[in-house]
Amino acid sequence: MKKKCIGIDVGGTTVKVGIFETDGTLLRKWEVPSRKEENGKYIIPDVVESIKKVLKEEKIAMEDVTGAGMGIPGPVLPDGYVEVCVNLGWRDMNPQKMLSDLLGGMPVCSGNDANVAALGEMWQGGGKGYRDIVMVTLGTGVGGGVILNEKIVAGRHGLAGEIGHIHIREGEKEACNCKGHGCVEQIASATGIAREARRAMAARTDESLMRKWGDDITAKNVLDAAKEGDALALEVMDTVCYYLGWALATVSMTVDPEVFVIGGGVSKAGTFLTDMIEKHYRKLTPISENKAGIRLATLGNDAGIYGAARLVLG
Amino acid sequence: MKKKCIGIDVGGTTVKVGIFETDGTLLRKWEVPSRKEENGKYIIPDVVESIKKVLKEEKIAMEDVTGAGMGIPGPVLPDGYVEVCVNLGWRDMNPQKMLSDLLGGMPVCSGNDANVAALGEMWQGGGKGYRDIVMVTLGTGVGGGVILNEKIVAGRHGLAGEIGHIHIREGEKEACNCKGHGCVEQIASATGIAREARRAMAARTDESLMRKWGDDITAKNVLDAAKEGDALALEVMDTVCYYLGWALATVSMTVDPEVFVIGGGVSKAGTFLTDMIEKHYRKLTPISENKAGIRLATLGNDAGIYGAARLVLG
Repeated sequence: MKKKCIGIDVGGTTVKVGIFETDGTLLRKWEVPSRKEENGKYIIPDVVESIKKVLKEEKIAMEDVTGAGMGIPGPVLPDGYVEVCVNLGWRDMNPQKMLSDLLGGMPVCSGNDANVAALGEMWQGGGKGYRDIVMVTLGTGVGGGVILNEKIVAGRHGLAGEIGHIHIREGEKEACNCKGHGCVEQIASATGIAREARRAMAARTDESLMRKWGDDITAKNVLDAAKEGDALALEVMDTVCYYLGWALATVSMTVDPEVFVIGGGVSKAGTFLTDMIEKHYRKLTPISENKAGIRLATLGNDAGIYGAARLVLG
Repeated sequence: MKKKCIGIDVGGTTVKVGIFETDGTLLRKWEVPSRKEENGKYIIPDVVESIKKVLKEEKIAMEDVTGAGMGIPGPVLPDGYVEVCVNLGWRDMNPQKMLSDLLGGMPVCSGNDANVAALGEMWQGGGKGYRDIVMVTLGTGVGGGVILNEKIVAGRHGLAGEIGHIHIREGEKEACNCKGHGCVEQIASATGIAREARRAMAARTDESLMRKWGDDITAKNVLDAAKEGDALALEVMDTVCYYLGWALATVSMTVDPEVFVIGGGVSKAGTFLTDMIEKHYRKLTPISENKAGIRLATLGNDAGIYGAARLVLG
């Protein structure tokens, strides 16, 4: 029997789990609710129980599993130690060791979920075929992951790939969650795009399709209006993509990946979005024509389980 | 006899060469003029001849040399191929292979000189004791190098560590050498600092120590005036250090090194300079207190030979 590996993506609501062939073929995936009571102490045991059940159903023996990888929504030390993981209630524990022990000593690796998702996109997603990618996830916030030589760059203090907290705009008065002013996340997250749109509507009197949503406007509304050619919405998206392109330009001059991979809910806008980003990115990196391109992520919410499974393959 | 390694730093005027113990002790260093006639075809043979002569004088046998590393002032492909190196006249050649052949098959590695200098500072300079550093060299231009896990990150298109060409200032009208507008190099190089000072003197009527140099002012003049407490010079340096601190903040959120190492002629201003940079850098990275510090380079012009020697140790 060919060897398998397990990918686990621990989230605040559910834990996603997948069983893979070591060549990246997904055999089966499922979800387990994240029981957060009593500081999340049941989360790992619940996952282990469901893994054992599925392996039995699939007639996969423990010894045919190379190992399990796990993405965690917070900072993880190299030995798997988690000081605190607010979303899960975890504090001062080692979920990696716990998982391994409960799986009879199976090799287990773990990492920050944004970094792990980037690894997944490199393995089987928008960055497939490349060894050096930088992923930027445009969701409620802006996450990121840097992969060099097929390995996660976590950073010496766990801050590598924090693309959302690159300072990019001067003069911003509102504070970001990180306490900064003018972070990429404040402009290019779904929340940020909606805020940019509200600001544009308030500052200007132009007619716009966006006005029908008023203050309840969402990033999707802005993108839909822009795609229909609405001038004010296009202006908002041009601003958003200018700052995103600028952030990618700085990343390019730092690690120079093969490709950027753009994921998250906002990236559903497709090449309409990436073309706008690329226009600004190219303008801000005139030093060479030969540089990283921009692609769309393809794995959606499964990037985490793919990356986690890849993690344990080394 | 303990093993030795050779470091070669090829420059447009001279080639610097050093013989080292593999523990990083410099045994002897010297220079060879860079003969640029006939597309620089004599440069490598001249270096080889002088190395053979010195090894003989020092009574070091070829078989006691682990290998030689070489820093080259231009882009180098992973196999050592150089498409073009303007400063030396080189075109379509492989100096790494040539050096190895002329040294009887000795193992030779090569890399871009700015990256190699960063590796040198990691090994025996301002970044000694660390495995992940980012070096920024403030000279006539602004160079840089990213070292992760004791290895150079060259980038997939040779653009990694191009800290000088991170776009950082909006609204700049003059063009950078790279054709960009608002690069770090335009503000924080020696040339850039002098230009900032000229601009400040032209835009303002304040008295200033800087006025005695007029348009001939140098970066050193600006720094000296700032150190004496001259208000306008301090303002200029604050602007320079704001943009530098901002650039380091973006690098920190991308690769999160253990330390930044600041080198080059401008860095002779010492902690007066790094304290000013650090103030802005810290303000622009409020996400965590636990992040890379800023240190001064210590090897000066020898960083290149140190790094080249380290390169061949793998």
